[in-house]
Amino acid sequence: MGKKFVYDFSEGSRDMKALLGGKGANLAEMTNLGIPVPGGFTITTEACIAYGVAGKQFPEGLAEEVADHLAALEEKAGKKLGQADNPLLVSVRSGAKFSMPGMMDTVLNLGLNDESVQGLAAQTGDERFAFDAYRRFIQMFGKVVMEVDGQLFEDAISAEREKADVSFDNELSAEDLKELVGTFKQILEREAGRSFPDDPREQLDMAIAAVFGSWDAPRAVTYRRHYNISDDLGTAVNVVMMVFGNMGDDSGTGVAFTRNPSTGEKEIFGDYLVNAQGEDVVAGIRKTKKLAEMKDDLPQACEKLIQVMHTLEQHYREMQDIEFTIEKGQLYMLQTRDGKRTAAAAVKIAVDMFGEGLISKEEAVARVDAGQLDQLLHPMLDPAKEYDVVTTGLNASPGAAVGKVVFDADTAAARGKSGESVILVRWETSPDDIHGLIQAQGVLTSHGGMTSHAAVVARGMGKPAVCGADQIRISEEDRRFTVGEHTISEGDIITIDGTTGNVILGAVELVPPQINENFQSIVEWADQIRTMGVRTNADTPEDAEKAREFGAEGIGLCRTEHMFMTPGRLPIVREMIMASGTRERSAALENLLPMQQGDFEGIFETMQGLPVTIRLLDPPLHEFLPDYTELMVEIERLKLTGGSEADIAEREAVAARVRSLKEMNPMLGTRGCRLGIQWPEIYEMQVRAIMQAAAAVQKKTGAAPQVEIMIPLVGYAEELRRMRGLTVRVCEEVLAGAGTAIDYKVGTMIELPRAAVTAGHISDYADFFSFGTNDLTQTTLGFSRDDAEGKFLTYYLDEGIVQSNPFETIDVNGVGKLVEMAVDASREKNPGIKLGVCGEHGGEPDSVKFCHRAGLNYVSCSPYRVPLARLAAAQAVLEEKRMVFTTA
Amino acid sequence: MGKKFVYDFSEGSRDMKALLGGKGANLAEMTNLGIPVPGGFTITTEACIAYGVAGKQFPEGLAEEVADHLAALEEKAGKKLGQADNPLLVSVRSGAKFSMPGMMDTVLNLGLNDESVQGLAAQTGDERFAFDAYRRFIQMFGKVVMEVDGQLFEDAISAEREKADVSFDNELSAEDLKELVGTFKQILEREAGRSFPDDPREQLDMAIAAVFGSWDAPRAVTYRRHYNISDDLGTAVNVVMMVFGNMGDDSGTGVAFTRNPSTGEKEIFGDYLVNAQGEDVVAGIRKTKKLAEMKDDLPQACEKLIQVMHTLEQHYREMQDIEFTIEKGQLYMLQTRDGKRTAAAAVKIAVDMFGEGLISKEEAVARVDAGQLDQLLHPMLDPAKEYDVVTTGLNASPGAAVGKVVFDADTAAARGKSGESVILVRWETSPDDIHGLIQAQGVLTSHGGMTSHAAVVARGMGKPAVCGADQIRISEEDRRFTVGEHTISEGDIITIDGTTGNVILGAVELVPPQINENFQSIVEWADQIRTMGVRTNADTPEDAEKAREFGAEGIGLCRTEHMFMTPGRLPIVREMIMASGTRERSAALENLLPMQQGDFEGIFETMQGLPVTIRLLDPPLHEFLPDYTELMVEIERLKLTGGSEADIAEREAVAARVRSLKEMNPMLGTRGCRLGIQWPEIYEMQVRAIMQAAAAVQKKTGAAPQVEIMIPLVGYAEELRRMRGLTVRVCEEVLAGAGTAIDYKVGTMIELPRAAVTAGHISDYADFFSFGTNDLTQTTLGFSRDDAEGKFLTYYLDEGIVQSNPFETIDVNGVGKLVEMAVDASREKNPGIKLGVCGEHGGEPDSVKFCHRAGLNYVSCSPYRVPLARLAAAQAVLEEKRMVFTTA
Repeated sequence: MGKKFVYDFSEGSRDMKALLGGKGANLAEMTNLGIPVPGGFTITTEACIAYGVAGKQFPEGLAEEVADHLAALEEKAGKKLGQADNPLLVSVRSGAKFSMPGMMDTVLNLGLNDESVQGLAAQTGDERFAFDAYRRFIQMFGKVVMEVDGQLFEDAISAEREKADVSFDNELSAEDLKELVGTFKQILEREAGRSFPDDPREQLDMAIAAVFGSWDAPRAVTYRRHYNISDDLGTAVNVVMMVFGNMGDDSGTGVAFTRNPSTGEKEIFGDYLVNAQGEDVVAGIRKTKKLAEMKDDLPQACEKLIQVMHTLEQHYREMQDIEFTIEKGQLYMLQTRDGKRTAAAAVKIAVDMFGEGLISKEEAVARVDAGQLDQLLHPMLDPAKEYDVVTTGLNASPGAAVGKVVFDADTAAARGKSGESVILVRWETSPDDIHGLIQAQGVLTSHGGMTSHAAVVARGMGKPAVCGADQIRISEEDRRFTVGEHTISEGDIITIDGTTGNVILGAVELVPPQINENFQSIVEWADQIRTMGVRTNADTPEDAEKAREFGAEGIGLCRTEHMFMTPGRLPIVREMIMASGTRERSAALENLLPMQQGDFEGIFETMQGLPVTIRLLDPPLHEFLPDYTELMVEIERLKLTGGSEADIAEREAVAARVRSLKEMNPMLGTRGCRLGIQWPEIYEMQVRAIMQAAAAVQKKTGAAPQVEIMIPLVGYAEELRRMRGLTVRVCEEVLAGAGTAIDYKVGTMIELPRAAVTAGHISDYADFFSFGTNDLTQTTLGFSRDDAEGKFLTYYLDEGIVQSNPFETIDVNGVGKLVEMAVDASREKNPGIKLGVCGEHGGEPDSVKFCHRAGLNYVSCSPYRVPLARLAAAQAVLEEKRMVFTTA
Repeated sequence: MGKKFVYDFSEGSRDMKALLGGKGANLAEMTNLGIPVPGGFTITTEACIAYGVAGKQFPEGLAEEVADHLAALEEKAGKKLGQADNPLLVSVRSGAKFSMPGMMDTVLNLGLNDESVQGLAAQTGDERFAFDAYRRFIQMFGKVVMEVDGQLFEDAISAEREKADVSFDNELSAEDLKELVGTFKQILEREAGRSFPDDPREQLDMAIAAVFGSWDAPRAVTYRRHYNISDDLGTAVNVVMMVFGNMGDDSGTGVAFTRNPSTGEKEIFGDYLVNAQGEDVVAGIRKTKKLAEMKDDLPQACEKLIQVMHTLEQHYREMQDIEFTIEKGQLYMLQTRDGKRTAAAAVKIAVDMFGEGLISKEEAVARVDAGQLDQLLHPMLDPAKEYDVVTTGLNASPGAAVGKVVFDADTAAARGKSGESVILVRWETSPDDIHGLIQAQGVLTSHGGMTSHAAVVARGMGKPAVCGADQIRISEEDRRFTVGEHTISEGDIITIDGTTGNVILGAVELVPPQINENFQSIVEWADQIRTMGVRTNADTPEDAEKAREFGAEGIGLCRTEHMFMTPGRLPIVREMIMASGTRERSAALENLLPMQQGDFEGIFETMQGLPVTIRLLDPPLHEFLPDYTELMVEIERLKLTGGSEADIAEREAVAARVRSLKEMNPMLGTRGCRLGIQWPEIYEMQVRAIMQAAAAVQKKTGAAPQVEIMIPLVGYAEELRRMRGLTVRVCEEVLAGAGTAIDYKVGTMIELPRAAVTAGHISDYADFFSFGTNDLTQTTLGFSRDDAEGKFLTYYLDEGIVQSNPFETIDVNGVGKLVEMAVDASREKNPGIKLGVCGEHGGEPDSVKFCHRAGLNYVSCSPYRVPLARLAAAQAVLEEKRMVFTTA
């Protein structure tokens, strides 16, 4: 005896998804719960695999098992497949463990032939319906089972319409459809080299084989390779008795959710149609009715449906998405599965179900998709409203904003201060635009990527931004921009959606962030579960304050360069950079010192003794300087228009300095600790400002801040040794001068592959490591983020060469591997070392889970993503426990 | 009983370098050979370590052992340390296993005090000499042993000179010097807080302690950390009886080599002085005499010396560098060590010594410094000539060149063709300059790094280049450049030395490459030993031909992009890039196809069946386009000077395309296989050209080329899977069309950290890997070569943060680790995979040795470095065998 290849629905259960597929397992589960399901059986995934192994032959015993189960089904139905007077019709559907594009989906109405179509006509009293069903069956069968080009059938229908002189398919008469059946059969014979199989059992075997075969279709294989799904799983095949919702006014069909998937409310939710087929509901040909009305149309079936939905939800302990058909008053369930929902609904359902005693807190936490949570933390477009998108750029900073278009920062600042809502539209922004960005509701740029100035600043401010919208043409002179045929002038209102990158003309209503009690409950429960800390990336007291509201337990990354970019400071910073020697540079730094100290005091006070990791200056110096091409063009203009010698000379001096600082690849140039090592006076000023601020706050509040000083872009242990030496020396000087003692830590970013590979050595000089996975991704993959997103990386994502954007979800096999190596090597040499992540991955759920598995102590992310990280960190614990459980 | 801490010279041997230091071991070896060496003893490195462990105290027993050995020495010498009438004087010298900067070197004349100085005066009959020796001893002792600021002594000497009204130290009289002795003692007492020790034994103990202490001097510690030398080695201390070469005309002193260190000739070579001290020879105060003349001046000592030199060379089986002193006719050897020599000498000596039966072939191969060999392969400045260097740029391509300065490629091409020698001087070169580069003797640029256009092209052509000489100011308009106070006009002659980066005004005589029979012997012996293959990086038949002459066994990297940059093709390449769609692009590619095919036919024919690895197009497309800033300035000029609308529009279109292709970090942008994946027609054309060329050559010569097609910049296995698919498809099409069969391999560069980390996966689709260690270094270290060399990397090298330029010598701990990971993972999954290196490291000896240890199958380097790689590969085998031997 071989394996059992076929299971009646009464023989299966929901735990048998691997063997019966998701659809089959749930049909079996419902059958065993006593819920009405049309009769049927499932051919196992093992049969599919055996079919492949046997060289595309049914494995021994399968044909007989199918025959037995078909006979049992016929007996139960009191009909026979293909019988002339009272035919049994079946659907054949694939159903793998995971749903998978590229696989054969469904063949309906199987069992029809020239004889049984007459029986169907008699049963339904509708000859047109019967022949329409027949031609649909032949068309579907021809296309997916016999692999005939579907266009040929569509062409034949067009020809038939022309001949009948009608406009729509549903105007074709029964006679027209009969003729079409004949034409379809000819097409089949001509194209497939064999005639349409009249024998229903042959139809069934061919359909089963086609489902099996589609497991190895190129698209399915590609999909599996990309998602790392084993080729050995196979697909199951469900053979289900057809039931018809279009058998009169006591029949109907619909789809429903056990709760409102949009709000999470516990209410009846769904659509249905009387006297209709399932595809009519989906296709939107007729206007559907709300499920609430069904109790008037079909009272008994409605009562039964509500009872079934309750049973299913109690049984599955999860919101269900169901399909049903009522045939002559009799309810049949055709599918049940866990329902998709909005973030708001997910939160409410999880909290409610815990309240109802259906699920535990852990389950509630596990149920909310952490990635979705971001939706709730920014104002967003009202999902109920419709609107036209005129162009789409990069979704650089989430949330939506509405405002009047302005084209320069001064106007934005002026109008913004006077209370107007404005959107700053620029080719690209620069540090000179900060005052405008602060006052604008959002920013739209035609240039620049996810790490452009506008994008970085907007994310830091939690302000919506759409960047690199390269379809828009800005004319600052004329105070307008064009996109396609539209022209938008200064003062016109637009809406930008930084969550999707969409740009919309006019105002769209926004809904506010949805942080409610339910939301609070979920993240607080998450806190009880998670073992990894959650900090925030914050550069200002305002950001820090916001992040604390969201539950941040410290600052994991305080960037000091943005502090240099405010309009009041930029001239001093430029002085520092243009300085011809150490003495001049030190003078400029002296001016910056009290400003920096003030920044740090504000942040330390806000964080009230929570740890604050401050990164010393990181970006290439030329980021603070004017654009080289613009300078050269200006010099040319001055020369040709009689500009003064002095003006020209001044600009040429600036141009010379910019040229000398210009780099081919600034990402790989003089930045990070390479600045601090060559011009130690810069880092000395910063360390001095930090410790003087710490001492001042200690004096003022009586409590010392937890100071962590971070050296960026270390690649050699020797770099950190020196910079640690400098840091400790200056700290001790300041503390001695202030006559106080404050603990401080010195650590580094791990953001270069060399740092990861040699982390053991580097850990000799570090109290902590923070993995800068943004830059580590750029160097490990050789992807400049500015040059990849919107360009080749977008192509790679579209083409499935990479599965997910490695700047959003950490590249586990490449970057992740380096992180793991560094964790192992540094913990071995320096067991007390504290390890965290401060790249944007710290706010992305899959990456947060990776960080937990890799054994990091904390993640740090933007303020708005802190709740999401808290949730994902808890889910990582739950997933780990489950894994331990299942492998035990 | 403790350890034995002191060894008389008669107790040691040259095998005891670890215990006695290099100097002490060789003094002992000479003593035991019966060669005259002044009496003395060595205090062991273990004593030094014990001194540190004991908290800077002499370990138990050391003082007694020193006393015993001193007594023995006094007895042998018939003098006593510090004795008033016949004093023994000694020198105290450090001597570690490795010589090391920062450690105390020497104290001479130890044993002098107010009494014994009189004895010395009596012995020498020269009171002035005695007091000069005495004040020198106090000065040296004060500075290095008692750590008094040396400037104070210099100031005192100046004061004494003024007082005596003389200009030079040697004009000071015995009386002046006596006074100075007094002054020095006062300085000592004031600064060190104790008086000068009159007791000679105290002097000795203090000097020994000072040598011990200098082992832990900061500079020595830093040096050891950088060169990975253990802190546990310690330094030995040699106490040697002073002998004097200035005791009359039967005395003298000198240095010598056992063979000519410049040519390698077996001849007497050295300098000496009659009646002089060792320092007089070195300081160049008196004109030295050639050693050949010594047999007239000091016939007996000379005969003895020649005999000793012969004995030493026979004994050490290596050319020796010696120091000697003759005191009253008696020869004393003060030092012997292996002598440094030029590359030419190294080769000749190694081959000669094999011929003399002194050493084996393996030893001969091991004796030649592979790194030095490069000197012999290019014309170079005559080392005998003197010249003034006006500025120094990057040594971008080795060898020297002399020629007339020209400032544009057209002039260079015209003058070059007419037989003039010209040096092309440019701010930077571009593809438009190729015809000028071809005709020029060398190139000098004021901008651009080691991978700038000029540098890469010049290295490819084996032509000298000095790049990034940023002190020179070029005025193309005025046809001249300035550097410092010099102005060089077109037609003026300069000399550039690409080996050092030096620029010299006027012509300096060059010596031709020194490839002779000895050179051939060494590399042929190396071939018998090495196990790793040596290929070349060659883009043209000429390069390939040159490399074959140098012994290349195939082409490891044939870059196709340089083929795109010749003046005839660049317009077509620009058409391809500017193409608005696939059709236009394909048309341009059609035009390139026959040109590329011609290129490959030439190379295949030259390589006569040896493997040829061809890399498909790699660089970012914008490299082929005009400079953006220049374009924008030109547009501004046209606008302001009434240029035609059409001209402006045309340039604006070009500018728009350049802007859209411009990248923030081109190194990490759309290049390598990212081009081939997005625009497959480019790679299809190239593969077609390769296989059509292979088929044509097969037809013509009857033998098929060994074709290896290499896909650049793979980071994901999926990229290679697709590009391999494309390659195989096109190859099969071509072969089917040609009706022939040719084997070909498809592989990839491993040049991204992700590729190294996921090499196991990638190896599924690769017949070979070639490690592109140039780019792998850039991404692993986060060093853009263009932005690092001459900037922060130069600073890092100067400061000792990195030990060697990672673009020259592979970074073993970082990049090397990734290479090793990739080798392991790929060999495990794909044991037949062929592994090589094609970065510039393939031509650097230490890196070649690393490649051997890592288990690579071959290295590939520029044609001129092939002999060097052959030699280094053999030395790697020898080093490995020795390691096995010593650890067994």
